[in-house]
Amino acid sequence: MILAKVIGTVWATKKDEKLVGMKLQIVRPVELDYKEKSGFLVAVDTVGAGVGEVVLVCQGSSARQTALTENRPVDATIMAIVDKLDVVE
Amino acid sequence: MILAKVIGTVWATKKDEKLVGMKLQIVRPVELDYKEKSGFLVAVDTVGAGVGEVVLVCQGSSARQTALTENRPVDATIMAIVDKLDVVE
Amino acid sequence: MILAKVIGTVWATKKDEKLVGMKLQIVRPVELDYKEKSGFLVAVDTVGAGVGEVVLVCQGSSARQTALTENRPVDATIMAIVDKLDVVE
Amino acid sequence: MILAKVIGTVWATKKDEKLVGMKLQIVRPVELDYKEKSGFLVAVDTVGAGVGEVVLVCQGSSARQTALTENRPVDATIMAIVDKLDVVE
Amino acid sequence: MILAKVIGTVWATKKDEKLVGMKLQIVRPVELDYKEKSGFLVAVDTVGAGVGEVVLVCQGSSARQTALTENRPVDATIMAIVDKLDVVE
Repeated sequence: MILAKVIGTVWATKKDEKLVGMKLQIVRPVELDYKEKSGFLVAVDTVGAGVGEVVLVCQGSSARQTALTENRPVDATIMAIVDKLDVVE
Repeated sequence: MILAKVIGTVWATKKDEKLVGMKLQIVRPVELDYKEKSGFLVAVDTVGAGVGEVVLVCQGSSARQTALTENRPVDATIMAIVDKLDVVE
Repeated sequence: MILAKVIGTVWATKKDEKLVGMKLQIVRPVELDYKEKSGFLVAVDTVGAGVGEVVLVCQGSSARQTALTENRPVDATIMAIVDKLDVVE
Repeated sequence: MILAKVIGTVWATKKDEKLVGMKLQIVRPVELDYKEKSGFLVAVDTVGAGVGEVVLVCQGSSARQTALTENRPVDATIMAIVDKLDVVE
Repeated sequence: MILAKVIGTVWATKKDEKLVGMKLQIVRPVELDYKEKSGFLVAVDTVGAGVGEVVLVCQGSSARQTALTENRPVDATIMAIVDKLDVVE
């Protein structure tokens, strides 16, 4: 999984019917100190993550292993909101 | 999912039989301001996206989770046309 | 899918039994003007693509969604020969 | 699989129900001499790997092929603790 | 698939039970002239490839499509030993 911050939302009216009701959040990968890296991806939110929150994003077929995303055309899912990291460097 | 702009179409007569009838669009990843990034990929269109439109592209096995692409040799699918982005940076 | 040019063939006598009879082609990604990029990968040919032809390559689990490659240890498949591209830039 | 070192732990209270009880470790890829590379990812531990240990991480759908991670939204799993490497260069 | 050279072996006593008996080889991607590129990955050997041999490595879920690796937490498999390449450049 990757660590990322929610920075926005995608609005799309015309979409595959299996995406109806899915919240499409824009997330940007972050460093261990939550500093934003470059780039972004779009992920379906399954845990009610709001803008500014640091989350875990699961990608690939594993992104479909939640009750909400099962069998849907979704390749990235927010499946946890991060409370804190314990890092030894 | 990635954000991309439709920039063209691939024509291919000789192809796997499961690709017959699939529209193969060329898409280029874009930034949050829709500025084009480098590179491109080819994705099957499932939502009637035309050239110039900004879309969401789903990749990997999830690209086969639409009624149109199920069980087909397709690793990238356009599954939404983007209306707008709300971004907080 | 990626756009690539067939540049050669891999010969391998000792291989998994499910690969027997598969044609292993070396393909190099190309730009929209068919100029070769760097790098290469090995893909199973399912459409009779010869050296020099520009093709579409499907990767990941989707590479196994053809009659020829089903259930085989193959992560890249040539599934179309490109006739032409219509690109608006 | 990639070679990585466990450098920390992610704490997340709000998460998909299938993640309850999973230990989310932060791992950093390492070179063959165990020198740390840049970057990191988050992986579920299935073998009791502690901080500082060098491990193997399996990614993608294969990350769900352990008794612990089956059918869970997990795209990276620690599935072995490395004793030593024999390398001929 | 990628072209790589076997450069060593990983020893791991503590591992997922489904990995018992799997030979974990370290492979380094190579160019078309077999010159080593940077980087490496760990792959399960299914064809008896020894150190120094040039092989094909299959990744992702396709790495589990051999009799040996089926249903195991393995994301890279050596599934062929390369005899030679015919390349037209």
